[in-house]
Amino acid sequence: MIDIIILGTGNVSYHFSEVILKKNDLQLIEICGRKNSIPECFDKSISYSNDISKIQSADIYLICVSDDAIDSVNSQLNINEESIVIHSSGSTEMNCLSKHKKYGVLYPLQTFSLNSQVDFNNIPLIVEASANDELIKIKELSSILSKKVIECNSTQRLSIHISAVFANNFSNHMNVIAEEILEANNVDPNILKPLILETSKKTQYLKSKEAQTGPAKRNDQITIEKHLILLKETKHFDMYKKITEEIIKSNHEL
Amino acid sequence: MIDIIILGTGNVSYHFSEVILKKNDLQLIEICGRKNSIPECFDKSISYSNDISKIQSADIYLICVSDDAIDSVNSQLNINEESIVIHSSGSTEMNCLSKHKKYGVLYPLQTFSLNSQVDFNNIPLIVEASANDELIKIKELSSILSKKVIECNSTQRLSIHISAVFANNFSNHMNVIAEEILEANNVDPNILKPLILETSKKTQYLKSKEAQTGPAKRNDQITIEKHLILLKETKHFDMYKKITEEIIKSNHEL
Repeated sequence: MIDIIILGTGNVSYHFSEVILKKNDLQLIEICGRKNSIPECFDKSISYSNDISKIQSADIYLICVSDDAIDSVNSQLNINEESIVIHSSGSTEMNCLSKHKKYGVLYPLQTFSLNSQVDFNNIPLIVEASANDELIKIKELSSILSKKVIECNSTQRLSIHISAVFANNFSNHMNVIAEEILEANNVDPNILKPLILETSKKTQYLKSKEAQTGPAKRNDQITIEKHLILLKETKHFDMYKKITEEIIKSNHEL
Repeated sequence: MIDIIILGTGNVSYHFSEVILKKNDLQLIEICGRKNSIPECFDKSISYSNDISKIQSADIYLICVSDDAIDSVNSQLNINEESIVIHSSGSTEMNCLSKHKKYGVLYPLQTFSLNSQVDFNNIPLIVEASANDELIKIKELSSILSKKVIECNSTQRLSIHISAVFANNFSNHMNVIAEEILEANNVDPNILKPLILETSKKTQYLKSKEAQTGPAKRNDQITIEKHLILLKETKHFDMYKKITEEIIKSNHEL
C-alpha cells in the first residue's frame, strides 16, 4: 500500500485523485490546497485541508499546482525524511525540490479538462528521481496508474513538454485558424469536426510524416496559389505560406 | 434509382465506390480509369473500363481524379445532355465543367486513405450545381450518402478547402515537428499518440479556441523562455516563436 497526499485542486489533481481512489494498492490520505473547501467535482470521501503546516504523513506527496506555484508550495512543505516529494510538471527542473531528502517527478503526458474522462492506463507517465530507492517507489506508483512508464532526465522531459505544445496547443491553433476562415466565409465551423478526428486517428497507426497529405506535400503550386489569393487580405496569409514552405522543404529532405 | 459512373481509381474513387455499392437507391454502372485494370482493393463486382470514348450512359458522372487531371478527363467526356457531370475537388471552380449542359460539385470534406475505413454518413458533403434541377439531383445523391449535405458556392468551397489544409495538413505538420523534437532527444515519438487523440476529441464538443491550453494561452513567459532556450539551435525555434506570439495576440483579441 502506498499512502499519497496531493497538493493542489486543479485539473491534474482532480484526475490523479479519481484514478488513485480506484486502486486498491493506493491510499489517498488527503488533498491539501489553498481554497477554503475542495471543489465540488472531487469525490466526497476525500479528506481536505487548507493548512499545509499541519499536513499529514504519507509515503508520497504529489504536487499538482501550476508551475509558478511549485516553489512556494514546496517551501511550505515540511515532512518526514523518508517521504518522497514529487511534482507533475513537464517543464520544471526536478532539482527545485532538492530541499527534501527524497524527491522526483511524475509528469503525465496528457491534456486534462474537468469535463472529459481520460483513460489513465494509456497516459504515458514520465518519471525521474533523486536516487534509485525513490525511482523504484515512483515507478511502483506509476505502474499502478498506467501501463506506460518512461524514465527521463529533466532535459528530455522538457523536450517532451515542448513536443506536447506542438502536438496539442499548436495543432489546436491550426484548428482555431481553420474555424476563423470558415466563419469569415459564412460557413459553419462544425463541419470540420469529422476531419479533425480522422486526422488524429491516422497518426495512431502511421508516423505523422507518413500520414501527411495535401497541396504542400504534393508541391501542388496551382492549388497553393489559389489558396494564397483567397488568403491575401487576411491575417492567415503568412502562416499558410510559412508552413507550406516548411512542408515542401521537409519533403525534399526525405 | 440513380445510375452513377465514377471516373478515376484513387482513394476518393475507392471510398465513393464502397459506399455507393451499399446503397439500394444507387447503382454503380462502371468505373472508368486510365489503368489497364482496376486496383486490387476495389470490389470485384465493379465493371471497369479504361476507354473513356466508349463510356456507358448514367445519370451522374462523378469525376474523382487529381485536380490537375480534371480538365483532361472532362475534355474527353462526351455524354448525354440529360446527364450531370460533377467533380469532387475542394479547390477547383465548378465552371471548369461548363462544356456540359448540367454540371456541379460534390466535395467530401474528409481525408481518405486506402487502409482506413471512414463513416461516410458523417462526412460533410459540399455541393454546388449549374442550375436548380441539377442541384436537386446532386442533393438527392448526397443525402443518400451522408446526413450532412451543405450547399456552397465555389469561393466558400475554396475557403473550406483552405480550412481543411489548416485543420488536417498543418495540424499534422505540428505533430511531425513534435515527433522530430522527441527523436532528437532520444525519446520514443509514440508516447504522443494518446495526447494527439485527446486533442482532437476535445474539439468534438468545444470550439477550438475554447479548447486551447498551454504556456502561450496562459502567456506563461517563464515556460516559453525555457522552451525557446532548448529550441535555440534547432530549425523549430522560429515556428515555436511565431505560433506562440499569434496565440498570445489572439488571446488579447478575446
